[in-house]
Amino acid sequence: MNWCRFEAGGRTSWGLVEGEVVSEVEGDPFAGHRPTATRHRLDAVRLLVPVVPPTFYCVGINYTDHIVKSAARRGVEPVFPKKPDIGYRANSALVAHGEAIVKPADSGEMFQYEGELVAVIGKRGRYIPKAKALDHVLGWTIGNDVSERTWQRGDRTMWRSKNADTFKPMGPWITTGLDYRAMETIIRLNGQEVDRFATANMIFDVETYISEISRYMTLQPGDVIWMGTDGLPQNMRPGDTVDIEITGIGVLSNPVVAESARPPMD
Amino acid sequence: MNWCRFEAGGRTSWGLVEGEVVSEVEGDPFAGHRPTATRHRLDAVRLLVPVVPPTFYCVGINYTDHIVKSAARRGVEPVFPKKPDIGYRANSALVAHGEAIVKPADSGEMFQYEGELVAVIGKRGRYIPKAKALDHVLGWTIGNDVSERTWQRGDRTMWRSKNADTFKPMGPWITTGLDYRAMETIIRLNGQEVDRFATANMIFDVETYISEISRYMTLQPGDVIWMGTDGLPQNMRPGDTVDIEITGIGVLSNPVVAESARPPMD
Repeated sequence: MNWCRFEAGGRTSWGLVEGEVVSEVEGDPFAGHRPTATRHRLDAVRLLVPVVPPTFYCVGINYTDHIVKSAARRGVEPVFPKKPDIGYRANSALVAHGEAIVKPADSGEMFQYEGELVAVIGKRGRYIPKAKALDHVLGWTIGNDVSERTWQRGDRTMWRSKNADTFKPMGPWITTGLDYRAMETIIRLNGQEVDRFATANMIFDVETYISEISRYMTLQPGDVIWMGTDGLPQNMRPGDTVDIEITGIGVLSNPVVAESARPPMD
Repeated sequence: MNWCRFEAGGRTSWGLVEGEVVSEVEGDPFAGHRPTATRHRLDAVRLLVPVVPPTFYCVGINYTDHIVKSAARRGVEPVFPKKPDIGYRANSALVAHGEAIVKPADSGEMFQYEGELVAVIGKRGRYIPKAKALDHVLGWTIGNDVSERTWQRGDRTMWRSKNADTFKPMGPWITTGLDYRAMETIIRLNGQEVDRFATANMIFDVETYISEISRYMTLQPGDVIWMGTDGLPQNMRPGDTVDIEITGIGVLSNPVVAESARPPMD
Protein backbone atom coordinates (compact mmCIF):
# COMPACT_ATOMS: atom_id res chain seq x y z
CA MET A 1 0.00 0.00 0.00
CA ASN A 2 1.10 3.57 -0.70
CA TRP A 3 -0.04 6.00 2.01
CA CYS A 4 -0.06 9.65 0.97
CA ARG A 5 -1.01 12.96 2.53
CA PHE A 6 -2.56 15.33 0.05
CA GLU A 7 -4.46 18.54 -0.42
CA ALA A 8 -7.49 18.74 -2.68
CA GLY A 9 -10.25 21.32 -2.68
CA GLY A 10 -8.65 23.17 0.23
CA ARG A 11 -8.70 20.11 2.52
CA THR A 12 -5.81 17.99 3.79
CA SER A 13 -6.42 14.22 3.94
CA TRP A 14 -4.70 10.89 3.98
CA GLY A 15 -5.20 8.58 1.05
CA LEU A 16 -4.11 5.36 -0.58
CA VAL A 17 -2.47 5.59 -4.00
CA GLU A 18 -3.17 2.87 -6.55
CA GLY A 19 -1.91 3.57 -10.03
CA GLU A 20 -3.28 6.97 -11.01
CA VAL A 21 -6.01 7.05 -8.34
CA VAL A 22 -5.99 8.30 -4.73
CA SER A 23 -8.65 6.77 -2.46
CA GLU A 24 -9.36 9.15 0.40
CA VAL A 25 -9.57 7.75 3.95
CA GLU A 26 -10.88 9.14 7.21
CA GLY A 27 -8.25 9.24 9.94
CA ASP A 28 -4.61 8.35 9.39
CA PRO A 29 -2.38 5.27 9.21
CA PHE A 30 -1.14 5.75 12.80
CA ALA A 31 -4.19 6.23 14.99
CA GLY A 32 -6.73 4.44 12.82
CA HIS A 33 -8.63 4.97 9.58
CA ARG A 34 -11.56 3.83 7.48
CA PRO A 35 -12.18 4.03 3.76
CA THR A 36 -14.42 6.63 2.12
CA ALA A 37 -16.08 6.62 -1.29
CA THR A 38 -14.08 9.65 -2.43
CA ARG A 39 -11.58 9.14 -5.27
CA HIS A 40 -9.18 11.64 -6.78
CA ARG A 41 -6.94 11.52 -9.81
CA LEU A 42 -3.35 11.45 -8.57
CA ASP A 43 -2.40 14.27 -10.95
CA ALA A 44 -5.25 16.43 -9.61
CA VAL A 45 -4.13 16.46 -5.95
CA ARG A 46 -1.18 18.21 -4.33
CA LEU A 47 1.00 15.67 -2.54
CA LEU A 48 2.23 16.89 0.87
CA VAL A 49 5.19 15.78 2.96
CA PRO A 50 3.90 12.28 3.86
CA VAL A 51 4.38 12.86 7.59
CA VAL A 52 5.61 15.71 9.80
CA PRO A 53 7.55 13.73 12.39
CA PRO A 54 7.38 14.28 16.15
CA THR A 55 11.15 13.64 16.07
CA PHE A 56 13.21 13.70 12.87
CA TYR A 57 16.15 11.27 13.14
CA CYS A 58 18.90 11.10 10.53
CA VAL A 59 21.96 8.88 10.17
CA GLY A 60 24.86 11.04 9.04
CA ILE A 61 27.27 8.50 7.56
CA ASN A 62 26.24 4.92 7.03
CA TYR A 63 27.66 3.65 3.72
CA THR A 64 31.31 2.71 3.15
CA ASP A 65 31.61 3.93 -0.42
CA HIS A 66 30.25 7.39 0.50
CA ILE A 67 32.78 7.77 3.32
CA VAL A 68 35.75 6.63 1.20
CA LYS A 69 34.90 8.80 -1.82
CA SER A 70 33.93 11.91 0.18
CA ALA A 71 37.20 11.70 2.15
CA ALA A 72 39.22 11.25 -1.07
CA ARG A 73 37.58 14.32 -2.59
CA ARG A 74 38.54 16.36 0.50
CA GLY A 75 42.03 14.84 0.62
CA VAL A 76 41.59 13.42 4.12
CA GLU A 77 41.63 9.91 5.60
CA PRO A 78 38.23 8.19 5.68
CA VAL A 79 36.73 7.84 9.17
CA PHE A 80 34.23 5.05 9.71
CA PRO A 81 31.64 5.21 12.49
CA LYS A 82 32.38 2.77 15.31
CA LYS A 83 28.83 2.74 16.63
CA PRO A 84 25.37 3.78 15.50
CA ASP A 85 25.19 7.45 16.58
CA ILE A 86 21.98 9.07 15.40
CA GLY A 87 21.48 12.78 14.59
CA TYR A 88 18.59 15.16 14.03
CA ARG A 89 17.19 17.28 11.25
CA ALA A 90 14.66 20.14 11.35
CA ASN A 91 11.01 19.83 10.35
CA SER A 92 11.21 23.42 9.08
CA ALA A 93 13.33 22.14 6.17
CA LEU A 94 10.80 19.58 4.85
CA VAL A 95 9.24 19.93 1.41
CA ALA A 96 7.12 17.50 -0.60
CA HIS A 97 7.65 15.64 -3.86
CA GLY A 98 7.56 18.15 -6.70
CA GLU A 99 8.31 21.20 -4.57
CA ALA A 100 11.37 23.32 -5.30
CA ILE A 101 14.72 23.02 -3.54
CA VAL A 102 15.81 26.64 -3.10
CA LYS A 103 19.57 27.23 -3.39
CA PRO A 104 20.41 30.04 -0.92
CA ALA A 105 21.83 33.24 -2.41
CA ASP A 106 25.03 32.95 -0.34
CA SER A 107 25.58 29.19 -0.79
CA GLY A 108 28.54 27.81 -2.71
CA GLU A 109 29.03 25.48 -5.66
CA MET A 110 29.16 22.34 -3.50
CA PHE A 111 25.36 22.19 -3.16
CA GLN A 112 24.48 18.50 -3.29
CA TYR A 113 21.74 15.89 -3.08
CA GLU A 114 21.90 12.75 -0.92
CA GLY A 115 19.39 10.02 -1.77
CA GLU A 116 18.22 8.17 1.34
CA LEU A 117 15.84 5.47 2.46
CA VAL A 118 13.48 6.68 5.21
CA ALA A 119 11.93 4.34 7.79
CA VAL A 120 8.58 5.67 9.08
CA ILE A 121 7.77 4.48 12.59
CA GLY A 122 4.21 3.19 13.01
CA LYS A 123 4.20 1.86 16.56
CA ARG A 124 5.41 3.44 19.78
CA GLY A 125 8.30 1.61 21.41
CA ARG A 126 11.12 1.61 23.92
CA TYR A 127 13.69 -1.16 24.52
CA ILE A 128 13.00 -2.75 21.13
CA PRO A 129 15.08 -5.88 20.37
CA LYS A 130 16.57 -6.04 16.87
CA ALA A 131 14.44 -9.08 16.06
CA LYS A 132 11.27 -7.00 16.59
CA ALA A 133 12.52 -3.69 15.18
CA LEU A 134 10.76 -3.94 11.82
CA ASP A 135 7.41 -4.52 13.58
CA HIS A 136 7.67 -0.83 14.57
CA VAL A 137 8.04 0.35 10.95
CA LEU A 138 4.82 1.39 9.22
CA GLY A 139 6.55 1.70 5.86
CA TRP A 140 9.23 3.35 3.77
CA THR A 141 9.63 6.62 1.96
CA ILE A 142 12.44 8.55 0.24
CA GLY A 143 14.48 11.52 1.48
CA ASN A 144 16.88 13.92 -0.20
CA ASP A 145 19.35 15.10 2.47
CA VAL A 146 20.35 18.28 0.60
CA SER A 147 23.74 19.53 1.84
CA GLU A 148 25.86 22.64 1.36
CA ARG A 149 29.40 21.27 1.81
CA THR A 150 31.24 24.52 2.51
CA TRP A 151 28.84 25.34 5.34
CA GLN A 152 29.01 21.72 6.50
CA ARG A 153 32.75 22.13 7.18
CA GLY A 154 32.58 25.63 8.65
CA ASP A 155 29.49 25.57 10.86
CA ARG A 156 29.99 24.23 14.38
CA THR A 157 26.72 22.33 14.02
CA MET A 158 25.22 21.42 10.64
CA TRP A 159 22.28 23.77 11.06
CA ARG A 160 22.58 25.72 7.77
CA SER A 161 24.36 23.09 5.72
CA LYS A 162 21.65 20.47 6.20
CA ASN A 163 18.56 22.32 7.48
CA ALA A 164 17.95 25.53 5.56
CA ASP A 165 14.38 25.90 4.22
CA THR A 166 13.58 23.31 1.47
CA PHE A 167 16.76 21.25 2.20
CA LYS A 168 14.76 18.15 3.19
CA PRO A 169 12.51 16.87 0.39
CA MET A 170 10.62 13.75 1.53
CA GLY A 171 8.07 11.62 -0.33
CA PRO A 172 6.24 10.94 -2.53
CA TRP A 173 4.40 8.57 -0.14
CA ILE A 174 4.90 5.82 2.46
CA THR A 175 4.96 2.29 1.05
CA THR A 176 4.12 -0.63 3.33
CA GLY A 177 4.90 -4.33 3.08
CA LEU A 178 8.34 -4.04 1.46
CA ASP A 179 11.64 -5.80 2.20
CA TYR A 180 14.19 -2.99 2.39
CA ARG A 181 17.02 -5.47 1.85
CA ALA A 182 15.80 -6.02 -1.72
CA MET A 183 15.73 -2.31 -2.67
CA GLU A 184 18.00 -0.41 -5.00
CA THR A 185 18.51 3.37 -4.86
CA ILE A 186 18.97 5.16 -8.19
CA ILE A 187 19.75 8.88 -8.42
CA ARG A 188 19.23 10.90 -11.59
CA LEU A 189 20.27 14.47 -12.26
CA ASN A 190 18.30 15.96 -15.15
CA GLY A 191 17.24 12.49 -16.16
CA GLN A 192 20.78 11.08 -16.28
CA GLU A 193 21.77 8.38 -13.81
CA VAL A 194 24.54 9.63 -11.48
CA ASP A 195 24.50 6.93 -8.82
CA ARG A 196 23.04 3.52 -8.09
CA PHE A 197 23.53 1.43 -4.96
CA ALA A 198 22.05 -1.42 -2.98
CA THR A 199 19.90 0.37 -0.40
CA ALA A 200 20.66 -2.22 2.30
CA ASN A 201 24.44 -1.92 1.93
CA MET A 202 24.58 -0.04 5.23
CA ILE A 203 27.28 -0.06 7.91
CA PHE A 204 24.58 -0.32 10.63
CA ASP A 205 21.24 -1.61 9.42
CA VAL A 206 17.72 -0.34 10.14
CA GLU A 207 17.13 -2.93 12.87
CA THR A 208 20.34 -1.89 14.67
CA TYR A 209 19.40 1.80 14.60
CA ILE A 210 15.85 1.24 15.82
CA SER A 211 17.07 -0.97 18.64
CA GLU A 212 19.89 1.39 19.65
CA ILE A 213 17.74 4.53 19.58
CA SER A 214 15.11 2.79 21.69
CA ARG A 215 17.63 2.02 24.44
CA TYR A 216 17.47 5.72 25.29
CA MET A 217 14.42 7.17 23.58
CA THR A 218 10.79 6.31 23.01
CA LEU A 219 10.07 6.01 19.30
CA GLN A 220 6.69 7.55 18.41
CA PRO A 221 4.28 6.89 15.55
CA GLY A 222 5.25 9.26 12.74
CA ASP A 223 8.92 9.54 13.70
CA VAL A 224 11.21 9.16 10.69
CA ILE A 225 14.73 7.75 10.49
CA TRP A 226 16.73 8.78 7.41
CA MET A 227 19.27 6.05 6.78
CA GLY A 228 22.15 7.84 4.99
CA THR A 229 23.45 7.76 1.43
CA ASP A 230 26.09 5.95 -0.62
CA GLY A 231 28.28 7.10 -3.51
CA LEU A 232 29.70 10.53 -4.28
CA PRO A 233 27.01 13.20 -4.69
CA GLN A 234 27.35 15.74 -7.49
CA ASN A 235 26.58 19.46 -7.42
CA MET A 236 23.08 20.73 -8.18
CA ARG A 237 22.51 24.03 -9.97
CA PRO A 238 19.38 26.14 -10.36
CA GLY A 239 17.44 24.73 -13.29
CA ASP A 240 18.38 21.13 -12.45
CA THR A 241 15.92 18.43 -11.43
CA VAL A 242 16.99 15.66 -9.06
CA ASP A 243 15.14 12.35 -8.90
CA ILE A 244 15.71 9.81 -6.15
CA GLU A 245 14.19 6.45 -7.01
CA ILE A 246 14.02 3.58 -4.57
CA THR A 247 12.70 0.41 -6.10
CA GLY A 248 9.32 -0.61 -4.71
CA ILE A 249 8.57 2.86 -3.35
CA GLY A 250 8.72 5.22 -6.34
CA VAL A 251 10.47 8.45 -7.28
CA LEU A 252 11.02 11.63 -5.26
CA SER A 253 11.54 14.40 -7.80
CA ASN A 254 12.39 18.03 -7.03
CA PRO A 255 13.48 20.96 -9.18
CA VAL A 256 16.26 23.28 -8.00
CA VAL A 257 15.70 27.06 -8.13
CA ALA A 258 17.80 30.02 -7.04
CA GLU A 259 16.79 32.08 -4.02
CA SER A 260 15.73 35.51 -5.16
CA ALA A 261 17.64 38.46 -3.71
CA ARG A 262 17.28 38.74 0.07
CA PRO A 263 15.50 41.67 1.59
CA PRO A 264 17.76 43.98 3.61
CA MET A 265 17.86 42.75 7.23
CA ASP A 266 19.62 45.56 9.06
CA MET B 1 0.45 36.74 31.37
CA ASN B 2 1.40 33.14 32.09
CA TRP B 3 0.22 30.75 29.36
CA CYS B 4 0.07 27.11 30.40
CA ARG B 5 -0.99 23.83 28.84
CA PHE B 6 -2.65 21.52 31.31
CA GLU B 7 -4.66 18.36 31.75
CA ALA B 8 -7.70 18.28 33.98
CA GLY B 9 -10.56 15.80 33.94
CA GLY B 10 -8.99 13.89 31.05
CA ARG B 11 -8.92 16.95 28.77
CA THR B 12 -5.94 18.97 27.53
CA SER B 13 -6.43 22.75 27.38
CA TRP B 14 -4.59 26.03 27.34
CA GLY B 15 -5.05 28.36 30.27
CA LEU B 16 -3.86 31.54 31.93
CA VAL B 17 -2.26 31.24 35.35
CA GLU B 18 -2.88 33.99 37.89
CA GLY B 19 -1.69 33.24 41.39
CA GLU B 20 -3.21 29.88 42.34
CA VAL B 21 -5.91 29.91 39.65
CA VAL B 22 -5.89 28.66 36.05
CA SER B 23 -8.46 30.27 33.75
CA GLU B 24 -9.22 27.93 30.87
CA VAL B 25 -9.33 29.33 27.33
CA GLU B 26 -10.68 27.99 24.06
CA GLY B 27 -8.02 27.79 21.36
CA ASP B 28 -4.35 28.56 21.94
CA PRO B 29 -2.01 31.56 22.14
CA PHE B 30 -0.77 31.02 18.57
CA ALA B 31 -3.81 30.64 16.32
CA GLY B 32 -6.31 32.54 18.48
CA HIS B 33 -8.27 32.08 21.69
CA ARG B 34 -11.19 33.32 23.76
CA PRO B 35 -11.85 33.15 27.49
CA THR B 36 -14.18 30.60 29.09
CA ALA B 37 -15.86 30.69 32.48
CA THR B 38 -13.98 27.58 33.65
CA ARG B 39 -11.51 28.02 36.51
CA HIS B 40 -9.21 25.42 38.07
CA ARG B 41 -7.00 25.48 41.11
CA LEU B 42 -3.39 25.42 39.91
CA ASP B 43 -2.57 22.58 42.29
CA ALA B 44 -5.48 20.52 40.92
CA VAL B 45 -4.31 20.44 37.29
CA ARG B 46 -1.40 18.59 35.71
CA LEU B 47 0.88 21.05 33.92
CA LEU B 48 2.11 19.79 30.54
CA VAL B 49 5.12 20.80 28.48
CA PRO B 50 3.96 24.34 27.55
CA VAL B 51 4.46 23.74 23.83
CA VAL B 52 5.61 20.85 21.65
CA PRO B 53 7.66 22.76 19.07
CA PRO B 54 7.52 22.21 15.31
CA THR B 55 11.30 22.74 15.43
CA PHE B 56 13.33 22.60 18.66
CA TYR B 57 16.34 24.93 18.42
CA CYS B 58 19.07 25.02 21.07
CA VAL B 59 22.19 27.14 21.45
CA GLY B 60 25.03 24.89 22.58
CA ILE B 61 27.49 27.35 24.10
CA ASN B 62 26.56 30.97 24.62
CA TYR B 63 27.98 32.18 27.96
CA THR B 64 31.66 33.00 28.58
CA ASP B 65 31.87 31.74 32.14
CA HIS B 66 30.41 28.33 31.20
CA ILE B 67 32.96 27.89 28.40
CA VAL B 68 35.94 28.92 30.57
CA LYS B 69 34.99 26.77 33.56
CA SER B 70 33.94 23.71 31.54
CA ALA B 71 37.24 23.82 29.61
CA ALA B 72 39.25 24.19 32.85
CA ARG B 73 37.47 21.17 34.34
CA ARG B 74 38.41 19.11 31.27
CA GLY B 75 41.95 20.52 31.18
CA VAL B 76 41.60 21.96 27.68
CA GLU B 77 41.77 25.48 26.22
CA PRO B 78 38.41 27.29 26.09
CA VAL B 79 36.98 27.71 22.59
CA PHE B 80 34.56 30.58 22.02
CA PRO B 81 32.01 30.49 19.21
CA LYS B 82 32.86 32.93 16.42
CA LYS B 83 29.34 33.05 15.04
CA PRO B 84 25.84 32.12 16.15
CA ASP B 85 25.55 28.45 15.07
CA ILE B 86 22.27 26.92 16.22
CA GLY B 87 21.66 23.26 17.03
CA TYR B 88 18.68 20.96 17.56
CA ARG B 89 17.16 18.90 20.33
CA ALA B 90 14.54 16.12 20.20
CA ASN B 91 10.89 16.55 21.16
CA SER B 92 10.96 12.98 22.43
CA ALA B 93 13.08 14.17 25.37
CA LEU B 94 10.61 16.81 26.65
CA VAL B 95 9.01 16.50 30.09
CA ALA B 96 6.96 19.01 32.06
CA HIS B 97 7.50 20.85 35.32
CA GLY B 98 7.32 18.34 38.16
CA GLU B 99 7.98 15.27 36.04
CA ALA B 100 10.96 13.05 36.81
CA ILE B 101 14.33 13.24 35.08
CA VAL B 102 15.31 9.59 34.66
CA LYS B 103 19.05 8.88 34.99
CA PRO B 104 19.81 6.03 32.53
CA ALA B 105 21.11 2.79 34.03
CA ASP B 106 24.33 2.98 31.98
CA SER B 107 25.01 6.71 32.46
CA GLY B 108 27.99 8.00 34.40
CA GLU B 109 28.52 10.32 37.36
CA MET B 110 28.77 13.45 35.20
CA PHE B 111 25.00 13.72 34.82
CA GLN B 112 24.24 17.44 34.95
CA TYR B 113 21.57 20.15 34.71
CA GLU B 114 21.88 23.27 32.54
CA GLY B 115 19.45 26.09 33.37
CA GLU B 116 18.39 27.98 30.25
CA LEU B 117 16.10 30.75 29.10
CA VAL B 118 13.73 29.61 26.32
CA ALA B 119 12.29 31.99 23.72
CA VAL B 120 8.93 30.77 22.39
CA ILE B 121 8.18 31.99 18.87
CA GLY B 122 4.67 33.40 18.40
CA LYS B 123 4.75 34.70 14.84
CA ARG B 124 5.95 33.09 11.64
CA GLY B 125 8.91 34.84 10.04
CA ARG B 126 11.77 34.75 7.57
CA TYR B 127 14.42 37.44 7.00
CA ILE B 128 13.74 39.05 10.39
CA PRO B 129 15.90 42.10 11.16
CA LYS B 130 17.37 42.22 14.68
CA ALA B 131 15.33 45.31 15.48
CA LYS B 132 12.11 43.34 14.90
CA ALA B 133 13.23 40.00 16.35
CA LEU B 134 11.44 40.32 19.68
CA ASP B 135 8.13 40.99 17.87
CA HIS B 136 8.30 37.30 16.90
CA VAL B 137 8.58 36.11 20.51
CA LEU B 138 5.32 35.17 22.21
CA GLY B 139 7.00 34.83 25.59
CA TRP B 140 9.59 33.07 27.71
CA THR B 141 9.86 29.80 29.53
CA ILE B 142 12.58 27.78 31.27
CA GLY B 143 14.53 24.75 30.06
CA ASN B 144 16.83 22.26 31.76
CA ASP B 145 19.28 21.00 29.12
CA VAL B 146 20.16 17.80 31.00
CA SER B 147 23.52 16.43 29.80
CA GLU B 148 25.52 13.26 30.31
CA ARG B 149 29.11 14.50 29.87
CA THR B 150 30.86 11.19 29.20
CA TRP B 151 28.46 10.44 26.36
CA GLN B 152 28.76 14.04 25.19
CA ARG B 153 32.50 13.51 24.55
CA GLY B 154 32.22 10.01 23.07
CA ASP B 155 29.16 10.20 20.82
CA ARG B 156 29.76 11.52 17.31
CA THR B 157 26.55 13.54 17.65
CA MET B 158 25.04 14.49 21.01
CA TRP B 159 22.03 12.24 20.55
CA ARG B 160 22.23 10.28 23.84
CA SER B 161 24.07 12.86 25.93
CA LYS B 162 21.45 15.55 25.43
CA ASN B 163 18.32 13.81 24.11
CA ALA B 164 17.56 10.62 26.03
CA ASP B 165 13.99 10.36 27.33
CA THR B 166 13.23 12.99 30.06
CA PHE B 167 16.48 14.94 29.37
CA LYS B 168 14.62 18.10 28.35
CA PRO B 169 12.37 19.46 31.14
CA MET B 170 10.59 22.64 29.98
CA GLY B 171 8.10 24.86 31.79
CA PRO B 172 6.28 25.60 33.97
CA TRP B 173 4.53 28.04 31.55
CA ILE B 174 5.16 30.75 28.97
CA THR B 175 5.32 34.28 30.38
CA THR B 176 4.61 37.22 28.08
CA GLY B 177 5.50 40.90 28.36
CA LEU B 178 8.91 40.50 30.01
CA ASP B 179 12.27 42.14 29.30
CA TYR B 180 14.73 39.25 29.15
CA ARG B 181 17.63 41.64 29.74
CA ALA B 182 16.40 42.22 33.28
CA MET B 183 16.20 38.52 34.22
CA GLU B 184 18.37 36.55 36.59
CA THR B 185 18.75 32.75 36.45
CA ILE B 186 19.12 30.95 39.79
CA ILE B 187 19.77 27.21 40.01
CA ARG B 188 19.14 25.21 43.18
CA LEU B 189 20.06 21.61 43.87
CA ASN B 190 18.03 20.17 46.74
CA GLY B 191 17.06 23.71 47.72
CA GLN B 192 20.64 24.96 47.88
CA GLU B 193 21.75 27.63 45.42
CA VAL B 194 24.49 26.30 43.13
CA ASP B 195 24.56 28.99 40.46
CA ARG B 196 23.24 32.46 39.72
CA PHE B 197 23.84 34.52 36.58
CA ALA B 198 22.46 37.42 34.60
CA THR B 199 20.28 35.71 32.00
CA ALA B 200 21.16 38.27 29.31
CA ASN B 201 24.92 37.85 29.72
CA MET B 202 25.05 35.96 26.42
CA ILE B 203 27.77 35.90 23.78
CA PHE B 204 25.13 36.25 21.03
CA ASP B 205 21.81 37.65 22.20
CA VAL B 206 18.26 36.49 21.42
CA GLU B 207 17.79 39.09 18.69
CA THR B 208 20.97 37.96 16.94
CA TYR B 209 19.93 34.31 16.99
CA ILE B 210 16.41 34.97 15.73
CA SER B 211 17.73 37.15 12.93
CA GLU B 212 20.49 34.69 11.94
CA ILE B 213 18.24 31.62 11.99
CA SER B 214 15.69 33.45 9.86
CA ARG B 215 18.25 34.15 7.13
CA TYR B 216 18.00 30.44 6.28
CA MET B 217 14.88 29.08 7.98
CA THR B 218 11.28 30.05 8.49
CA LEU B 219 10.51 30.37 12.19
CA GLN B 220 7.08 28.95 13.05
CA PRO B 221 4.66 29.69 15.88
CA GLY B 222 5.52 27.31 18.69
CA ASP B 223 9.19 26.90 17.77
CA VAL B 224 11.45 27.21 20.81
CA ILE B 225 15.01 28.50 21.05
CA TRP B 226 16.94 27.40 24.15
CA MET B 227 19.57 30.05 24.82
CA GLY B 228 22.38 28.17 26.62
CA THR B 229 23.63 28.21 30.21
CA ASP B 230 26.29 29.91 32.28
CA GLY B 231 28.41 28.72 35.18
CA LEU B 232 29.72 25.24 35.97
CA PRO B 233 26.92 22.66 36.38
CA GLN B 234 27.16 20.11 39.18
CA ASN B 235 26.26 16.43 39.09
CA MET B 236 22.71 15.26 39.82
CA ARG B 237 22.01 11.97 41.59
CA PRO B 238 18.80 9.97 41.95
CA GLY B 239 16.88 11.44 44.86
CA ASP B 240 17.95 15.01 44.03
CA THR B 241 15.60 17.78 42.96
CA VAL B 242 16.79 20.52 40.61
CA ASP B 243 15.04 23.90 40.45
CA ILE B 244 15.73 26.42 37.70
CA GLU B 245 14.32 29.82 38.55
CA ILE B 246 14.26 32.70 36.10
CA THR B 247 13.02 35.93 37.65
CA GLY B 248 9.70 37.05 36.20
CA ILE B 249 8.85 33.59 34.83
CA GLY B 250 8.90 31.23 37.84
CA VAL B 251 10.52 27.94 38.78
CA LEU B 252 10.99 24.75 36.75
CA SER B 253 11.40 21.96 39.30
CA ASN B 254 12.13 18.30 38.55
CA PRO B 255 13.12 15.35 40.70
CA VAL B 256 15.82 12.93 39.55
CA VAL B 257 15.13 9.19 39.67
CA ALA B 258 17.14 6.14 38.61
CA GLU B 259 16.10 4.11 35.57
CA SER B 260 14.93 0.72 36.70
CA ALA B 261 16.72 -2.28 35.26
CA ARG B 262 16.40 -2.56 31.49
CA PRO B 263 14.56 -5.46 29.93
CA PRO B 264 16.76 -7.82 27.93
CA MET B 265 16.94 -6.60 24.32
CA ASP B 266 18.66 -9.44 22.48
